[in-house]
Amino acid sequence: MSAFDFSDERLARIMWSAIAEPGDRRLAQLIAQIGPTIALHGLVERDIPWMARYRVRFPHISPERELAQFKQLGGRVVIPSDDEWPMSLAALSAPPPCLWLRGPLSLQHLEQRSVAIVGARAASAYGEHVAGEIAAGVADRGFVVLSGLAYGVDAAAHRAAIHQGRSAAVLAGGADRPYPRGHDRLMASVMSEGVVMSEVPPGSAPTRGRFLHRNRLIAALGQGTVVVEAAIRSGALNTARTAAHLGRVVGAVPGPVTAPGSAGCHELIRSGRAVLVTDADEVVDLVGRLGDDAAPSRATTSSIRDGLDELTSQVLDAVPVRDSNSANQICIAAGLDLPTVQSALGRLSLLGLVSQQDGGWRLARRGNSHHGADVLC
Amino acid sequence: MSAFDFSDERLARIMWSAIAEPGDRRLAQLIAQIGPTIALHGLVERDIPWMARYRVRFPHISPERELAQFKQLGGRVVIPSDDEWPMSLAALSAPPPCLWLRGPLSLQHLEQRSVAIVGARAASAYGEHVAGEIAAGVADRGFVVLSGLAYGVDAAAHRAAIHQGRSAAVLAGGADRPYPRGHDRLMASVMSEGVVMSEVPPGSAPTRGRFLHRNRLIAALGQGTVVVEAAIRSGALNTARTAAHLGRVVGAVPGPVTAPGSAGCHELIRSGRAVLVTDADEVVDLVGRLGDDAAPSRATTSSIRDGLDELTSQVLDAVPVRDSNSANQICIAAGLDLPTVQSALGRLSLLGLVSQQDGGWRLARRGNSHHGADVLC
Repeated sequence: MSAFDFSDERLARIMWSAIAEPGDRRLAQLIAQIGPTIALHGLVERDIPWMARYRVRFPHISPERELAQFKQLGGRVVIPSDDEWPMSLAALSAPPPCLWLRGPLSLQHLEQRSVAIVGARAASAYGEHVAGEIAAGVADRGFVVLSGLAYGVDAAAHRAAIHQGRSAAVLAGGADRPYPRGHDRLMASVMSEGVVMSEVPPGSAPTRGRFLHRNRLIAALGQGTVVVEAAIRSGALNTARTAAHLGRVVGAVPGPVTAPGSAGCHELIRSGRAVLVTDADEVVDLVGRLGDDAAPSRATTSSIRDGLDELTSQVLDAVPVRDSNSANQICIAAGLDLPTVQSALGRLSLLGLVSQQDGGWRLARRGNSHHGADVLC
Repeated sequence: MSAFDFSDERLARIMWSAIAEPGDRRLAQLIAQIGPTIALHGLVERDIPWMARYRVRFPHISPERELAQFKQLGGRVVIPSDDEWPMSLAALSAPPPCLWLRGPLSLQHLEQRSVAIVGARAASAYGEHVAGEIAAGVADRGFVVLSGLAYGVDAAAHRAAIHQGRSAAVLAGGADRPYPRGHDRLMASVMSEGVVMSEVPPGSAPTRGRFLHRNRLIAALGQGTVVVEAAIRSGALNTARTAAHLGRVVGAVPGPVTAPGSAGCHELIRSGRAVLVTDADEVVDLVGRLGDDAAPSRATTSSIRDGLDELTSQVLDAVPVRDSNSANQICIAAGLDLPTVQSALGRLSLLGLVSQQDGGWRLARRGNSHHGADVLC
């Protein structure tokens, strides 16, 4: 057994992060109950059967060495007693013992304003475009964009938020292992302006189980999660479900129903597990604090015409576009009596919608130009 | 005043349909209270001030002649005492006095199975395609497709339902007036296989007010309304709102958020006024009777792998793809003790997910082939 300072909580947590797998609820419960250092004493001093698994890697790990090496990479290890520790992780049944971080962005920003943007690796140009637009838009408003550094939607989201220093990548493997390998430069960029993090120590491989548990971190760290393009069986849906389960808001971006790439998003919306979002404003509206970040309404101001009462509107319908008609002719066209028609024509004239010509009435040019198109559908 | 049989309800209703404008609530209330023939007596015999407007067109109308001429066109006039009268119109605050119909399809079919499909006139190829797919799909399932004969979505919906004789067009003008004029042949097709209807008499112009009231008929006659492509200010949204107001189900088809053509649909879904629908199955699911027409679930059957408990899954992650590893090596990779690993390897072997090779363990070829792609996102 390696010798190290059992009373140092940071080193104890580093040890646990190295000898246990992510998402271990029984261990998380024990650490919550007695703390990581006493739990480690228990592991070393007592032969507790269910803890046998943790003894397998134990002899091979030196927390001091892990920490020293990670610091040489410019990294830091954050634990719950640190100011930087995100309280949002408390929502998890098995929060990580510690987080391995690289990059200048403090995790405290995540607690103020953060959105996870996830989606298909095999994204379409549409999906990457929308992911980029939304990520850039929310980053401009001060939100940290969290994602998983994967191809497709993840990469588009990271790239769009990097220049504001608001990109945060959560990795399934160690924070020294770019995955996928093709994203080594993207990871370097995120790391130089934002932050790259993992709950497993440097050198750890990104296994399937670690991916699923990584998704729970993304879901928990984001105040909300937005899914941009996801087929029916997509890891992004797993993240969205976890986010919803943790009480985070979930948004999904729709797309053409003719392409399978958005089917997962549509299903999330159909089932009520996600709110449909179309742009950064709506994402901010969903995630942000009310009032502060309310999205501008899409409804355009209604035209003068929409404000008319029904009878006046009926008279307006009966006024010819070209030529002019007498009030009596307008009565017949409108199916209304003369006093009603005359009083309506008076109002319409004041509003500039009709004008007199050759002793009759016709539509004013200005008022009519765009109305037909609005409504004849 | 023209002379006609005041005691004939059909002729009285024809008169009302000619002398009043659609959507007249006060008149509808009167007709509901005392019947159309007594109401007509009141108009002729008493000088009731608010009824003055109805006297304007009255001298010019002969209901017998209107009916005879419409019959020569192959038309029929349906009133509430007819079997064909759709009871769904009772939901309206101002149901039409009668309906002017042309075509072999009985309106009774509307009460059994009907869907209104509405949307942008300036539809994209995407919108027309989806409207056609949904219309054909629901018509195949016996649903009548209601729409407004406009360009774009309306026309695509009508065309796709014509060959099953399930196309029904509701016009804003008279049932003898193709509108738009470019759709005279489409109207003829709908009329020869389905039905064309209006609440205003032949010869009536399609005015703005009549379009809005026509929309309420479409909304009321459909058991549900589906909006396919609609910009923020679109008449289709008016139909959708009316349908929702009448207690009908409303569906909306999403589209790319990068094109303004679907913004109205997205807003309907966002505001909870419409359910997102992507195909005919989901429309039938929304509109149809439960059980009978439930849409097949989009969720694919989960793989064997998804059924594994967490520890077994963790062991599977630690088994190499190529070469083979000893159980002890797998213990270290998985962070689990030997008894746990051995028992998990036994289960995995039974499931065909791992196999033994050279005294060690590796993934079985069959079991691994497609898993990585599912989840590493």
